[in-house]
Amino acid sequence: MEEAKGVVMHVVLAKFKDGIAENKIEEIIKDFANLVNIIEPMKSFNWGKDVSSENLNQGFTHIFESTFESTEGVAEYVAHPAHVDFANLFLSHVEKVIVIDYKPTALNPTNNVFNLFYADSLRSSMLEHQRRDGEREICNAFGASDSLALDWTTHCTSGM
Amino acid sequence: MEEAKGVVMHVVLAKFKDGIAENKIEEIIKDFANLVNIIEPMKSFNWGKDVSSENLNQGFTHIFESTFESTEGVAEYVAHPAHVDFANLFLSHVEKVIVIDYKPTALNPTNNVFNLFYADSLRSSMLEHQRRDGEREICNAFGASDSLALDWTTHCTSGM
Repeated sequence: MEEAKGVVMHVVLAKFKDGIAENKIEEIIKDFANLVNIIEPMKSFNWGKDVSSENLNQGFTHIFESTFESTEGVAEYVAHPAHVDFANLFLSHVEKVIVIDYKPTALNPTNNVFNLFYADSLRSSMLEHQRRDGEREICNAFGASDSLALDWTTHCTSGM
Repeated sequence: MEEAKGVVMHVVLAKFKDGIAENKIEEIIKDFANLVNIIEPMKSFNWGKDVSSENLNQGFTHIFESTFESTEGVAEYVAHPAHVDFANLFLSHVEKVIVIDYKPTALNPTNNVFNLFYADSLRSSMLEHQRRDGEREICNAFGASDSLALDWTTHCTSGM
């Protein structure tokens, strides 16, 4: 089972307390998203409301997913004062919460999807010099033979 | 808040029953992953064990994330006989489970990371003609001006 190098997904499930106004929830989500701009190891943030129809959400209504380079990065995030402040606000507004961190593993032959996912997360949140260093590292990891990114562009630019 | 077009993340949290052998769990995970090869709307599959240190996993030990093109795609997956068989096996081995579906929303200016994520999920799981159709659609969506993929390749092939 192949493991994506250096990507840790940080997954938060929440049910907000009854009676909290929708615009208060939106404000909290914006504060959550803003941590990407404050805490360096946090590389991306996405969220959504549950839309499943299997009746197995156990009452959870929201999910938040962010990416980190390492479990050490998550630990740095958890301890960061901006996160501590946010977590206090967040936890006072939720009835229940689950937090899971995991290193995504595919059973497919390659895990390029997560390399690209990670690469683009880095791109969108880094300072210029961090971005350049990160890209150099990832391009080296791709290597000359691992041409998924090249291949993709060829498809987009050739007539197909 | 910008929403990624057409991507639905299907997230399953589980705690396996005590006493189930590790190799049985691995077998179940392989069966889960294999649904990508059987059920057309399921575009990718990744999983991981919880490695968080925040003590908020509420006993959940495993997470499984797959991607779909639409909520209709998830519904087709849920009703598919191969999924029904697998779900019966899976549910008989877990103590508790949560299922959340969501359409990832970023608060960043673009959501290209999910476009690429989705594009590469398509690539790895499609038949040749499905892949060509999907790529044509995605290249059209990128458009001439949205050159993140091109940009990325330029960085990899130029000296940086």
